[in-house]
Amino acid sequence: MNEIHNRLKAIRNKLKDLEIDAWFISGTDPHGSEYLPDRWQTRKFISGFTGSYGIVVVTLEHAALWTDTRYFIQAESELQGTGIEMRKLRVSDSITPEEWIAEKLPGGSKIGIDPKTVSVNIFRNLRNSLDEKRISIESTPDLFENVWPDRPKLSDSPVFDFDISFSGVSRTEKQTRVAEKLETAGADFLLVTMLDELAWLFNLRGYDIKYNPVFTGFGLIGKKQNHLFVDKIKLQDDLIYLLEKEGIILHPYHQFIDFLGGLKGYRILLDPGTANYLIYQTLERNNKIIETVSPVALMKSCKNETELQGFRKAMLKDGLALVEFLFWLKETVGKRNVNEYEIGSKLAELRALQNNFMGESFAPIVGYKEHGAIVHLSVTPENAKFVEPDGILLFDSGGQYLDGTTDITRTVALGEVSEQQKIDFTLVLKGMIDLSMAIFPVGTKGCHLDILARKPLWEKGLNYGHGTGHGVGHFLSVHEGPMAIRQEYNENRLEPGQ
Amino acid sequence: MNEIHNRLKAIRNKLKDLEIDAWFISGTDPHGSEYLPDRWQTRKFISGFTGSYGIVVVTLEHAALWTDTRYFIQAESELQGTGIEMRKLRVSDSITPEEWIAEKLPGGSKIGIDPKTVSVNIFRNLRNSLDEKRISIESTPDLFENVWPDRPKLSDSPVFDFDISFSGVSRTEKQTRVAEKLETAGADFLLVTMLDELAWLFNLRGYDIKYNPVFTGFGLIGKKQNHLFVDKIKLQDDLIYLLEKEGIILHPYHQFIDFLGGLKGYRILLDPGTANYLIYQTLERNNKIIETVSPVALMKSCKNETELQGFRKAMLKDGLALVEFLFWLKETVGKRNVNEYEIGSKLAELRALQNNFMGESFAPIVGYKEHGAIVHLSVTPENAKFVEPDGILLFDSGGQYLDGTTDITRTVALGEVSEQQKIDFTLVLKGMIDLSMAIFPVGTKGCHLDILARKPLWEKGLNYGHGTGHGVGHFLSVHEGPMAIRQEYNENRLEPGQ
Repeated sequence: MNEIHNRLKAIRNKLKDLEIDAWFISGTDPHGSEYLPDRWQTRKFISGFTGSYGIVVVTLEHAALWTDTRYFIQAESELQGTGIEMRKLRVSDSITPEEWIAEKLPGGSKIGIDPKTVSVNIFRNLRNSLDEKRISIESTPDLFENVWPDRPKLSDSPVFDFDISFSGVSRTEKQTRVAEKLETAGADFLLVTMLDELAWLFNLRGYDIKYNPVFTGFGLIGKKQNHLFVDKIKLQDDLIYLLEKEGIILHPYHQFIDFLGGLKGYRILLDPGTANYLIYQTLERNNKIIETVSPVALMKSCKNETELQGFRKAMLKDGLALVEFLFWLKETVGKRNVNEYEIGSKLAELRALQNNFMGESFAPIVGYKEHGAIVHLSVTPENAKFVEPDGILLFDSGGQYLDGTTDITRTVALGEVSEQQKIDFTLVLKGMIDLSMAIFPVGTKGCHLDILARKPLWEKGLNYGHGTGHGVGHFLSVHEGPMAIRQEYNENRLEPGQ
Repeated sequence: MNEIHNRLKAIRNKLKDLEIDAWFISGTDPHGSEYLPDRWQTRKFISGFTGSYGIVVVTLEHAALWTDTRYFIQAESELQGTGIEMRKLRVSDSITPEEWIAEKLPGGSKIGIDPKTVSVNIFRNLRNSLDEKRISIESTPDLFENVWPDRPKLSDSPVFDFDISFSGVSRTEKQTRVAEKLETAGADFLLVTMLDELAWLFNLRGYDIKYNPVFTGFGLIGKKQNHLFVDKIKLQDDLIYLLEKEGIILHPYHQFIDFLGGLKGYRILLDPGTANYLIYQTLERNNKIIETVSPVALMKSCKNETELQGFRKAMLKDGLALVEFLFWLKETVGKRNVNEYEIGSKLAELRALQNNFMGESFAPIVGYKEHGAIVHLSVTPENAKFVEPDGILLFDSGGQYLDGTTDITRTVALGEVSEQQKIDFTLVLKGMIDLSMAIFPVGTKGCHLDILARKPLWEKGLNYGHGTGHGVGHFLSVHEGPMAIRQEYNENRLEPGQ
């Protein structure tokens, strides 16, 4: 805990030097990634909280972390003693970071952000809310550079070509489709800033982020020229040759912002929900920015026939691994001491026996009894519960196969279960069946369908505090937008192949 | 038809004089009313279309009218021969007015609006869309003044006190609740521009608009002073005395904008979805505008116990009238010639026998056979269909009682109905039952529930092209927001009493 106190103190000293009253830490990287490379695990560094989503605000006297329902229990426990308050996002009567800032700081205060870690939308939302109270927002350098002595560097791991036998569509064809979108939108360039979009569009994959086969880079797609910002050290010579032969212009990663600064008089498509504010600021001076949901995100979400076939193969392999796992579980529980951590490792071990397995798609969640209620549980060998032939075990895990990505959750009874558990399980199952069987017209959005999964629970006065369904990438991120099945409004219609 | 041609020509001549390339006609009044006083029936005057919703755009060479699914059939027929194209709103692949304007006019063109007839949100939407194509928006005078020789004046009909035995809560108490909202929002004034909000807040009613017991006026509610802009000629002396005794400051209606122009340095709450752009422009120069969904709309939507009791009484009376109507229908159809128009009149006549009846709540819709498919049908004695003992009759009508407002739709079989009609009826009934019985948690919005009514239809590949449910005012408008049960996103949660 002393470590966290010292880090907060170091940040506060920097804020005093800069004459800034608070710092807003988005908890993400310049690409808006959900899963982060070690270098960008700033939220964990400053707070000790290990969940995959959270915003931190540090004022000279207070600090708070906001996270969503999945992590309330975990954050409460991990923040104990740090002096950082846990705050809930998106539950009724919760106070947003903007409201909290407005409450803690007097009018005329200044709040700092590192503009490369904040999306355009988040910046605007902050500005609109704080304007009211005459609190201004200032761009600061990345303060972690000074207060995090052994901060990891970005990885030099290799980037590899993702074969068309898996991707189904060539780089060139994907880029031609983007060029058509540019034509329709009357734009010159599309900016690609999300790492999974970049990987999909260039049919490349990498090892820079655990569980996500992506690489750190940016793309700028024109009607005739495609720029890829990725360090050449990560590419083998034959891949460089191949990419350049296809007309792709390679640039070092760190030259991206300078390159954008050199663009003048262009019309540039950018997704304000994901592009960072430094990019926006750099471009807006001399160019016309056209804001849009990323067309790459939309294309990527509708899987092609090869990808769909791949998913089916991946599901079959995952199913085999799970059958082996269930057999092992039956043979092991009650016979010898086995804990949640070991069970999670066993899941990975059995998946790894399948061909084209490239790793897990997220940290396995194995929760026994009350641990099963912690939606994104993370246990270590030290704090894992021992599992006995009684009650319910939940496991939520997945694999990255070259064929596709999986994300499978099951709850199994290891022995006696209560009447209430049977009822709850049945209500969830009813919702699952209703949603799975839904027939709906073109134009339907995820927020319209969400209730089908909840209705049987609502009828009994029950609910669950998280979304219902998310997209899954094709050998990419286990959470993939832009559509979703959840109550929050999402303008993207559900499309075939998603 | 010649009449419409001449009117369009007159508008175009005015546009040429003003060197403006197109005129955007919102089809509403300075209060954003759905039902309009005769003076503001500009859409009908310029196009001949008699539906309750539609936008018209007139360029020097083209003209088009946009309306929603309820009116596609009617608009198509009413616009025949006028030279005005019918355009669909909110269906897939439809072209919005902004897109149409951008398509018809070259860059650098100017489009005119009468800023008192366009809400702040509609203005912004237009500006954002047209900016892109360098089409500017200019405020113009009300061109109808010049081209509509016998344009009706605003009505001088009386305004009457709405007794607390019906409203349940006094003017003073309602205004105290607004003052509390102002306090919380750190604001000095709330602007009340919608006529039903004004009527509710001041416990006053009037006869200025057919079917809606409202009066033309504006309100400006402060923490300590309440201004009501309504012409004194409409108020009896004892009502003037009563209002002034309660501290309400009365001003002539036409002095509203001048009064706003005199305000300086205030913080003013305004709903950009309903306040007109002239008001916004007038205030923004010297004041801080705080945008919000109208707190009056939210308060008004949650009916108090007296209002709820009143609704129950009104429903009982409406039910009696409908029973008498059904008996009359049975005794009449097949015995003598009777048409849709007469049936509509009979509905009104039987409702009028009930006590506290003040008029119909909207023009009765009586549709026989294929006419039943026209969602907001309007027939005259001349074009009404004769009704026979065969097929289905739809009637959708309602009453204004001092106790509350009703809106009742029923379909009855007058003789043989087809198998398909029985199936369709049953599917609609299933959806109705599912929605009516829904149990849902606090925070649920109308767009989440909408699917419950549609699902049985969707399963058979069917759907309906309009919303599912709307609020109803208490002796006020038959359509009342801000909540709604429909697929379009609406940020307002459903609350008890709505």
